[in-house]
Amino acid sequence: MKRILLPAITVCLIWGVFSGPVSGAEAGESGGHGGIASFLFALAAILVAAKAGGELFERMHQPAVLGELVVGVILGNFSLLGVHLFEGLRTMPDIHTAAEIGVILLLFEVGLESNLHGLLAVGLSATLVAVLGVIAPVILGYFVSMWFLPEAQWYVHLFAGATLAATSVGITARVLKDIRRMETKEARIILGAAVVDDVLGLIILAVVSGIVSSIDQGRAADVSWMPVLWIIVKAVAFLVGAILIGRLLAGRVIHFGAHARVSGMPVVLSLIYCFLLAGLAEAIGLAAIVGAFAAGLVLDETSYRAYPQMQARRIEELIAPISSIFVPVFFVLMGIRVDLNSFSSLSVLEFAAALSLAAIVGKQICSLGILEKGLNRLAVGVGMIPRGEVGLIFASMGARQTVAGVAVFSSETYSAMVVMVMVTTLATPPLLKYLMAKDR
Amino acid sequence: MKRILLPAITVCLIWGVFSGPVSGAEAGESGGHGGIASFLFALAAILVAAKAGGELFERMHQPAVLGELVVGVILGNFSLLGVHLFEGLRTMPDIHTAAEIGVILLLFEVGLESNLHGLLAVGLSATLVAVLGVIAPVILGYFVSMWFLPEAQWYVHLFAGATLAATSVGITARVLKDIRRMETKEARIILGAAVVDDVLGLIILAVVSGIVSSIDQGRAADVSWMPVLWIIVKAVAFLVGAILIGRLLAGRVIHFGAHARVSGMPVVLSLIYCFLLAGLAEAIGLAAIVGAFAAGLVLDETSYRAYPQMQARRIEELIAPISSIFVPVFFVLMGIRVDLNSFSSLSVLEFAAALSLAAIVGKQICSLGILEKGLNRLAVGVGMIPRGEVGLIFASMGARQTVAGVAVFSSETYSAMVVMVMVTTLATPPLLKYLMAKDR
Repeated sequence: MKRILLPAITVCLIWGVFSGPVSGAEAGESGGHGGIASFLFALAAILVAAKAGGELFERMHQPAVLGELVVGVILGNFSLLGVHLFEGLRTMPDIHTAAEIGVILLLFEVGLESNLHGLLAVGLSATLVAVLGVIAPVILGYFVSMWFLPEAQWYVHLFAGATLAATSVGITARVLKDIRRMETKEARIILGAAVVDDVLGLIILAVVSGIVSSIDQGRAADVSWMPVLWIIVKAVAFLVGAILIGRLLAGRVIHFGAHARVSGMPVVLSLIYCFLLAGLAEAIGLAAIVGAFAAGLVLDETSYRAYPQMQARRIEELIAPISSIFVPVFFVLMGIRVDLNSFSSLSVLEFAAALSLAAIVGKQICSLGILEKGLNRLAVGVGMIPRGEVGLIFASMGARQTVAGVAVFSSETYSAMVVMVMVTTLATPPLLKYLMAKDR
Repeated sequence: MKRILLPAITVCLIWGVFSGPVSGAEAGESGGHGGIASFLFALAAILVAAKAGGELFERMHQPAVLGELVVGVILGNFSLLGVHLFEGLRTMPDIHTAAEIGVILLLFEVGLESNLHGLLAVGLSATLVAVLGVIAPVILGYFVSMWFLPEAQWYVHLFAGATLAATSVGITARVLKDIRRMETKEARIILGAAVVDDVLGLIILAVVSGIVSSIDQGRAADVSWMPVLWIIVKAVAFLVGAILIGRLLAGRVIHFGAHARVSGMPVVLSLIYCFLLAGLAEAIGLAAIVGAFAAGLVLDETSYRAYPQMQARRIEELIAPISSIFVPVFFVLMGIRVDLNSFSSLSVLEFAAALSLAAIVGKQICSLGILEKGLNRLAVGVGMIPRGEVGLIFASMGARQTVAGVAVFSSETYSAMVVMVMVTTLATPPLLKYLMAKDR
C-alpha cells in the first residue's frame, strides 16, 4: 500500500505545484517553450494515479480498469475537500485528445482480439444469447430512463438503453480462467456471445449516436424513420465495406510492411489503417471507435491468413505499449467526469440502482437463447452481466454528444451510468465463482 | 516506387477531401463528436508520408530521417503549386503536441542508448575530440551568422553556433557497420566522442535556450554575466541532480514495476519518469528534451545494474513502437516548416552554403584532439560531420523560441539551417566510405 500511495501522492503534488505556474506562463506565452510542461505533468500525474489505482484494485482481486475509474473519481472530486488541484485536467484539450486516442486504441485491440472466423463459428446458441442479451437490456433501459427522466426526449432513453446493451467479456473470461472453467460449454457460449455482442453493441452505438447527430443537425427533428434507416444502412455498409475492402488491401499492405527497410513499418501501417478507418467512421457520422474496431477485425483476419510470421499476436504486442499509455488516460478522465455532488439527490442513487437492476435482469433473459439442455443457464446469464469498459465508452459518448447544445446524458445521468457499470462489473466475479463452482 | 507512392497519394487525397469539411463541422460544433476525425486524418497522412519518404531514401541508401524531412518540405510547400491542401498541418495544435512528444521520446531513446558507464570510459582522446568538436563549430557558426545577419542580436549568433555543435552519430555508426570498420580505433573514438558530444550539446542547448528565455523575460536584457552563469549552474545541476536522485530512486521504482500485477507497468513507469523530468526541465527554464535525455541516461544505468531481466534493451524495445508513431511526426513537421520561398533570395542559399562549410570545417578541428599517432585523423573528423536529427532539434528550438514576439531563427535562417543539416548528413556516408576503405 505504502509503496503505491507514497509515490502517487508525490507525483500529484509535483503536478499541483508546477502545473499552476506553468499554465500561467503558457497563457502569457512568456516562456516561449510552447507550454508542453503542463501537458507532460498532467499526463504523468494521470498515469501515476491510474497505475496506483489499477494496482490496488488488482491486489484486492478486482479489475484494474475499475481502479483507474475510481482514482479518476477521486481526482475529479478533490474540490469537495476544498482542494482545487485537478480541475484543470477536465478542460485540458491535449489530455482529451490523448483519451480519445486511448479509446480508439482500446477498440482497435478489441477488434484484433475478436476475429471474423470465430465470429462466424460461434454457433446458434451463442448468437441467440447475444441478440437477446442486447435487445432485452435496451428495452429495459429505455423504460427505466423514461420512468426517472420523464422530461427527457426519446433519444435520451434510447441512448440509456444502448448503454445497458454492451457486455465486457474480459472480466468474465478472467474469472473463468481463474477457477479453471474455460473449457465448459457455458464458458464457450459466454465467450462466443460476447464477441457477437461487441459487434451488435457497436452497430447500436453507431446507429444511436448517428440518430442524435442528425437530430442535432435538424435533419430528423420529427421522428421520421427515413434518417434512422439511412443511419442503420450506413453503419452496416461501413462495417461490411471496411471488412471487404480491408481484406482486399490489408494483405498487400502487410506484405509491403513485412518487406520494408524502414523500421517500425508493421506498427505504423496498422495504426495508419486504424486512424484512417476511425476518422472515416466519424466523418460519415458514425463513431470513431466503430472504425477502429473494424480496422482491428480486418487486420486480425488478413494477417492470420496470409502471413503467419506477422500474425495478430505480434501486432497486438506492438500496440500494447502504446495503448498502455493512452488507454488509462481515457478511464481516469471518465472518472474525473463523475460529479459526486450529483449523488446528493436521492433520485440519482435510485436511478443508478434501477439501471443496475435492469442491466442485471436484462442479461438474464439472454439465457433463453441457449438451445442445449442441461446447461447452467443462470451462470451464462451472470457471465454476460459486466459492462466494464464498453459500458463506459457508451456512457462517455452520451455525455459528449449534444443536441442543441445540451448533452444527451446530463451530469446526473452520466454519474448514474458509471455507478451501473461499477455495480455490474463488481457483482459478476463473486456470483460467477459461486455458480460455476457449485456446478462441479 | 509505385508501391510506395500510390498508397501515399491515395491517403493524402483522403486527407484533403475529408479534413476540409470535418474541420468545418468542428468549428461549428455541429457534429457533437468533438472533431477527432481531422486529427486522425492528419496523423495518418503524416505517417504515410513519413514512411513513404523514409522507405524511398533507405532504398537509395540514404538515412530515413532525411526522407521524412524531404517529404515534409514537399507537403509544406504544396502551396507553391497553387494547391492549398496541407497548410492546416502547420497550425494544428494536436499535431504540434504529437511532434513535441516525438522529440521527447527521441531524446529519451538517445539517453537510453548512451550509458553513463560508457560515457566515463571513452578515454581522453574521445573526450578531447568531443570538446574540440563542439567548441570549434560554435565559434565558426557564430561568425558566419554575424557575417550574414549583421542586424541580428548576439544570441541569434550564439544559437546558430550551438546548432552547428551537435553530432548525430547514428548515420556514421551505420556506415561503419556497413563497411565493417566498427572495430577500428577510429570508429571507437568517433562513437565515444559522439556520446560526450550528445551531453555537451544538450548542456549548450539548455544554456543557450535558457539565456534566450531570460532575455525574453527581461531578466538579462543587458549582457550581464550573472544570469548566464546562473543558467549554466542550473543546467549542470539539473543533469547531475537528475542522475544522482534517479540512481537512488529508479532502482526501487523498477523493482516495484517488475513485481506489479497490472500489465504494462515497465513501459508506463519509464515514460512517467521521462515525462516528469522533461516537464521539470522545461519548468525550470531548460528544454524539455534535456530532461528526457537525463531520464533515459538514468534508466539505462539502473536497469542494467540492478535488474538484468529488465535491462535497457527491453525498455528500448517497449518504447520503440510508441516512438515509431510520434518521432516521424516531428521530422515531417520540421520539413513542413521549411519555406522554399525563402530560397528565392540568393543570400539564403549563400548563408546555407557558409553554414554547411563551417559545420564541416569545424568538425575537422576536432581531430587535433586525437593523442594516438598513426590514426586516420581525417576519417575521424568526417565521421563527426553529420548533424542529423540533433541538428534539426536545435534548429527547431531556435525557430520556436521568441524574444519579444520575434523568433530567434527567422524563416530564412531556419531554412538555411535545415539545408546545412541535409548537406552534412548526405555528405558523410560517401566520404567516410572512401576514407575508411582507402585505409585498409
